[in-house]
Amino acid sequence: MVSSGVDRPVDLPLHRLWAVVPAGGAGTRLWPLSRAGRPKFLLDLSGSGRSLLQETVDRLSTLVDQRVLVVTGAPHAPAVAEQLGPDTRVLTEPSPRDSMAAIGLAAALLEREHPDALVGSFAADHVIRDRESFEASVREAAEVAAAGHLVTIGIEPTGPATGFGYIRAGAPLDGFATARRVEEFVEKPALDRARDYVASGHYRWNAGMFVCGATTLLDLLAETHPELAADLRTIAAEPDTLEERWPGLTRIAIDHAVAEPAAAAGRVAMVPGQFDWEDVGDFGSLAAMTSDPARPDLVAVLGDGDLVVTHDASGLVVPAAGRTVAVVGLHDVVVVDTGDALLVTSVDHAQQVKSVVDRLRADGRDELL
Amino acid sequence: MVSSGVDRPVDLPLHRLWAVVPAGGAGTRLWPLSRAGRPKFLLDLSGSGRSLLQETVDRLSTLVDQRVLVVTGAPHAPAVAEQLGPDTRVLTEPSPRDSMAAIGLAAALLEREHPDALVGSFAADHVIRDRESFEASVREAAEVAAAGHLVTIGIEPTGPATGFGYIRAGAPLDGFATARRVEEFVEKPALDRARDYVASGHYRWNAGMFVCGATTLLDLLAETHPELAADLRTIAAEPDTLEERWPGLTRIAIDHAVAEPAAAAGRVAMVPGQFDWEDVGDFGSLAAMTSDPARPDLVAVLGDGDLVVTHDASGLVVPAAGRTVAVVGLHDVVVVDTGDALLVTSVDHAQQVKSVVDRLRADGRDELL
Repeated sequence: MVSSGVDRPVDLPLHRLWAVVPAGGAGTRLWPLSRAGRPKFLLDLSGSGRSLLQETVDRLSTLVDQRVLVVTGAPHAPAVAEQLGPDTRVLTEPSPRDSMAAIGLAAALLEREHPDALVGSFAADHVIRDRESFEASVREAAEVAAAGHLVTIGIEPTGPATGFGYIRAGAPLDGFATARRVEEFVEKPALDRARDYVASGHYRWNAGMFVCGATTLLDLLAETHPELAADLRTIAAEPDTLEERWPGLTRIAIDHAVAEPAAAAGRVAMVPGQFDWEDVGDFGSLAAMTSDPARPDLVAVLGDGDLVVTHDASGLVVPAAGRTVAVVGLHDVVVVDTGDALLVTSVDHAQQVKSVVDRLRADGRDELL
Repeated sequence: MVSSGVDRPVDLPLHRLWAVVPAGGAGTRLWPLSRAGRPKFLLDLSGSGRSLLQETVDRLSTLVDQRVLVVTGAPHAPAVAEQLGPDTRVLTEPSPRDSMAAIGLAAALLEREHPDALVGSFAADHVIRDRESFEASVREAAEVAAAGHLVTIGIEPTGPATGFGYIRAGAPLDGFATARRVEEFVEKPALDRARDYVASGHYRWNAGMFVCGATTLLDLLAETHPELAADLRTIAAEPDTLEERWPGLTRIAIDHAVAEPAAAAGRVAMVPGQFDWEDVGDFGSLAAMTSDPARPDLVAVLGDGDLVVTHDASGLVVPAAGRTVAVVGLHDVVVVDTGDALLVTSVDHAQQVKSVVDRLRADGRDELL
């Protein structure tokens, strides 16, 4: 048990919370900015000078007194270590085994080190600016988790997004400020259904933020995937066997492995987050995030604005190659200029950028992926 | 008098014709492809592997048995000489003095060398593909010029362009196949007027193609600008005085100095050209010229097509920097990728590219001009 606050009781649930940050995912819809070797979480997409991963760890470290554990794949471990420095603990997965294995291994390690540990998983590549509200949600989630629940933090939808799963909220949970029971998790919906969800007021986005006792999480997993839970606990007990045991682990997302079955059994709660949240899933959301809300008629620049010359234009320009970029007479355009590849698209077509990556892969142009 | 054809009479007017090619003009609407140091005429804009200047000289050399004289500014003389090789005669202007001085000097030199010379001026940066029809027009123009007229070759309008001057045709000229009298030259019109011109059927575009006896041209000039005509003849007689006399020459276009006054006096004829013609004035016309008419739904590529990946897109891509260019979900877009600058615009806004150049100049970014 760790605490930095001398006048706070050391058994506050927040003081038992470890933040686990799975740092994975290619982000192909952000090509050519994101690449296989330089995924989204390693990029500075907010213009802050810090990568999404660094901002995520910054945000969490303050809240949980440096109790942060980053889990990443072997190919990115050196870059992650370089960005975070020696003070942040980094766990390296020998190969991708999906989110249950990544978060479950962290939980199993922490369970051994701190038997009453709570774990909270937070993606490495999301942007949250309202820290105070975020901290309030995590604090409440830790309290609910300490009472034995698997807790998710639900994001208030800003529109009928079809790229996220949704969480259906149920009755308020007695004894907590805002928490509610979760009736069910639903997969990414079609647009019509997404509209119904948002209109109903009962649904929130699932951003993969789960807070749970480490032991509770592994015990829930043991109910649905006993072998995976046992394997993870064995690896935690015998770390030398990681390389040998890892390839045999079941590949499954934490949502399917634990959250959905537990919700069906009435054992999941949700804290409705009040903070802003952006997963920067494509250049459309990056454009929205980068632009000045008061001047949507201008071109937003992520990078050195002196490199960009515009005339009768709006949208997003990323002059990452250091060259001058001129945009004339195009609106809601997206121009991403990198050293070896250039993307020109529109905010509305940002989701289709993936098709370019697919084509390059099919053509064997691996050097561009 | 020069002739290479042993079985053709040496006094055919075409055999007295010298092609004069003024190679000047920045082409700022083709930035960043064209630059101050690499103007439009030095670029390969047809994907042929030859620059516009080289194609122009190729086209004319065949027709007039190598009697080609290129007139260019001092800054571009080395590049022009390199592109054309030692067999093409190049005259270097010490400083820009507009088209009358450039063509007039060529006429004055040729008048001394070949007293019965005809001169035909043809811009270095236009594209003509139908050579046979072009040659027929020039042949007739030489015949009409040999009869003492100032002759222009009029281009059939393909639309109500506002970027060209127009030529109003009058009655047919007796004794020639297609030539007509010219009633007047009119300046670049507003759109409404251009529409009227085209609808009337009486107007053709003025592409600056003039054919005239060298002596006739200088004598016509002597009527309106006697000093300029005298200065040009003096320079031709005493070539060593070029540097000294050139700066004092009147700056005036051949249209204003000679063509318009001569037309008003009823001394200009027009041969209506039947050939295709494109002045490649901006990326809109370059896109039209580059695209496959049968597949306007595709992206036309000027350069290495392997560098371009598209999805649901049309327009023009010039991947001149050797980087991969991906275009997704944009139609009639123009992407011009060069080593130090990138332009993204649309076919409809191609004329406004000049505003970028103006801005860069105002900002003192001379290295990009």
